[in-house]
Amino acid sequence: MSDQFEASETSAAPEGDSEDYALSRKAVAAILYAVEIEDQAALTELMEPLHPADIADLLEQISEFDRTRLIRLYDREFDGEILSELDESIREEVIAILTPQVLSDAVREMDSDDVVDLIEDLEGEQQETILEALGDADRVAVEQALTYPEYSAGRLMQREVVMAPEHWNVGQAIDHLRATSEEDLPDQFYHIVMVDPRLHPVGNITLGKLMRSKRETLLKDILEETFEIIPATRDEGDVAYAFNQYHLISAPVVDEEGRLIGVITIDDAMAVLDEEHEEDILRLAGVGEGSLSDRVSETTKQRLPWLAVNLLTAIAASMVISQFEAAIAQIVALAVLMPIVASMGGNAGTQSLTVAVRAIATRDLTGSNVWRVIRRECLVGLINGLIFALVMGLVGLVWFGSSALGYVIAAAMVINMVVAGLAGTGIPIVLERIGIDPALASGAFVTTVTDVVGFFAFLGLAAVVLL
Amino acid sequence: MSDQFEASETSAAPEGDSEDYALSRKAVAAILYAVEIEDQAALTELMEPLHPADIADLLEQISEFDRTRLIRLYDREFDGEILSELDESIREEVIAILTPQVLSDAVREMDSDDVVDLIEDLEGEQQETILEALGDADRVAVEQALTYPEYSAGRLMQREVVMAPEHWNVGQAIDHLRATSEEDLPDQFYHIVMVDPRLHPVGNITLGKLMRSKRETLLKDILEETFEIIPATRDEGDVAYAFNQYHLISAPVVDEEGRLIGVITIDDAMAVLDEEHEEDILRLAGVGEGSLSDRVSETTKQRLPWLAVNLLTAIAASMVISQFEAAIAQIVALAVLMPIVASMGGNAGTQSLTVAVRAIATRDLTGSNVWRVIRRECLVGLINGLIFALVMGLVGLVWFGSSALGYVIAAAMVINMVVAGLAGTGIPIVLERIGIDPALASGAFVTTVTDVVGFFAFLGLAAVVLL
Repeated sequence: MSDQFEASETSAAPEGDSEDYALSRKAVAAILYAVEIEDQAALTELMEPLHPADIADLLEQISEFDRTRLIRLYDREFDGEILSELDESIREEVIAILTPQVLSDAVREMDSDDVVDLIEDLEGEQQETILEALGDADRVAVEQALTYPEYSAGRLMQREVVMAPEHWNVGQAIDHLRATSEEDLPDQFYHIVMVDPRLHPVGNITLGKLMRSKRETLLKDILEETFEIIPATRDEGDVAYAFNQYHLISAPVVDEEGRLIGVITIDDAMAVLDEEHEEDILRLAGVGEGSLSDRVSETTKQRLPWLAVNLLTAIAASMVISQFEAAIAQIVALAVLMPIVASMGGNAGTQSLTVAVRAIATRDLTGSNVWRVIRRECLVGLINGLIFALVMGLVGLVWFGSSALGYVIAAAMVINMVVAGLAGTGIPIVLERIGIDPALASGAFVTTVTDVVGFFAFLGLAAVVLL
Repeated sequence: MSDQFEASETSAAPEGDSEDYALSRKAVAAILYAVEIEDQAALTELMEPLHPADIADLLEQISEFDRTRLIRLYDREFDGEILSELDESIREEVIAILTPQVLSDAVREMDSDDVVDLIEDLEGEQQETILEALGDADRVAVEQALTYPEYSAGRLMQREVVMAPEHWNVGQAIDHLRATSEEDLPDQFYHIVMVDPRLHPVGNITLGKLMRSKRETLLKDILEETFEIIPATRDEGDVAYAFNQYHLISAPVVDEEGRLIGVITIDDAMAVLDEEHEEDILRLAGVGEGSLSDRVSETTKQRLPWLAVNLLTAIAASMVISQFEAAIAQIVALAVLMPIVASMGGNAGTQSLTVAVRAIATRDLTGSNVWRVIRRECLVGLINGLIFALVMGLVGLVWFGSSALGYVIAAAMVINMVVAGLAGTGIPIVLERIGIDPALASGAFVTTVTDVVGFFAFLGLAAVVLL
């Protein structure tokens, strides 16, 4: 028995380069087999080498039925970190499966900022259960963090901070650190924050420099060069941007009076950066949110509004076409060729809009260069438009034997691709200015423009020139 | 004079929430004015509060003409960190502007891993110039790093590592740290790496824990729980994934024999994560690479191949349409309605494919859940297909007064949206299996499928039912 599982366990190790960190199929199969035969010892042994983040991934990847059985069998081994790594879509479900005892043990192990992240999206009842499981100090900390707006620095920060007054020297700081009890210190910390008498942060000292300096060196003489202070109400996306832009490792968080109330560390900022990117990608594709562990009904609901918008867009384009029914009835080739013009415009528009949306997100598209960028995109559209106009003109000529048709499709192509560059850049910029997330809404607008302009230019020119 | 500039300088500070970290338009204008009137003192004063990363952004946002003048005027103030923050698209240009003296001063200030990042994409001649500017030790380090494959851990790591043998206690480690000269230590470090006698890394000790422990405590008793060893040849994307998944702060890098040769820190991993996301987004949109500071000719060239692929796709769809010219000639309404079916399929396909491509990138879509995911996407396609079939059936009926036309478009809609779910999930998975980047190529395949199936199902059914 145990031999069989050990053999499977080694297969959980990396197998090939591309699969390096993915859970191996064999490991998952062995775990599910242990669940099937209800062998708790084997399950525990198989799960032992897995990091909580990997266990969370495993739970997300298996079916709801297997998930329930696995969690029940795993029972007391279930650890708080697994909860914080779980995708939101199945958190409620998993919490509902855990016995009250396992849940409260798991929650009590967690850092207060992880508890905040865990409960902010839960229903009232589950929130209560978890808050009650916490010790008094932690509960107060969590409740206080929840008073900050969602997605703000205040919710992201940890409250335990190591600070030192401006007049201290290295020796005093080290002695203070050694005298502080374990539970008043953050789990992981990289800097000591120097504060003035009003608790305003004035600088960071890295632990490395602290250790290597003489005891009598003043702290103010070994401050780090780069130092960013983050207001508690700042949006977490802006926080992640600052960490990435200025290579911060940790940064002090302050309240409205500028007093130090917490610290954000780079690992949390990295997680936010990752989430924001994920959101941008999904929004650009018209998938609001969504993960693989969502239920079918939820996924259907999430995607429906985007498809509905697209339907309106498509109907608008069809109305343009219907204006030219007479022309199409006479020259059916128009119906055959018209999707090409619209499709090329849509593609070129998507290219421009994606670059623009990214540039806005990374603060690379600003008031200083907006006109230069728009001009550039139109120029790129013009050049590519001319190239493909030539190609399509020849295709039209060869396929349908009409040079006039060739000229018409060539002209429509150029027009639509310049418009695509203009709309693809202009629309995200305008949306951003009026406070709408350009990643969310640009796509629908841009394709509407390129479809309508594409069909109108091609069919309109054809009606004028060919009839 | 100086008053005027001070007034402008304060406006470089945050103005509103959304602009928090962006360069303000006024600050850029003041800087360009100083360049215009060639006031070096004012320029230096205006640039002084800016972080090198912000200066790099500024250089990316202004025109080539202004960039050249600014760099010439800024002259000796130009610092190595600006170079490492610059977008690749203008690095060569900027390096060519710098005087040899400024360039060699700038390069000599940089960490060796930043120099590697800087020169790996440069032309041979500029590479030589920079290598010659380096000191002997740095040059050897850089040349050695360049022997590792591009985008590998070996190029990402810094070579300075603080290590300690297994038998040491805390006191010995601290004394060793204090005795090591500044230049043999990394600029920033967070862990001491414990190694066995063959230099294989066996664990990490955080500086925080080291400082707080008694001098006689053995290092092996205060090792961190999470510890990942990274082979030098591992892809940087996998490295970034590991940092994000396991919340690593730093990780040791080893050669083929498993010997410690360097360390990767989380800030480098975060930069890689950011780049990889950027790449994914741009690839999904059919923009290979590309940034706003690319020239028009380059951007045109980058986008051309994608548009060419799209043209082939569109022509394939047109060929399907041309099979049904007779039907369209009889019922022009078909030409009006057919883009709707194709467009809805394309949209639903893009939704599925984006979720699949992301899930593959984040290792959430694996052998264990692939069939469940495909089934789910098809089911979502079926449900949304039925909903929009109903809507479009009614639209068809009302608009063209034909219930048969309504049935045909409804049926085609259901077929195409199920196919979209299948193709949107299946194609990225197959591409990944055969070693093609799914972000790069899925879009073209999926829209080809949804266009062809959409037109064929709609026009084919129409030809059978309505004629």
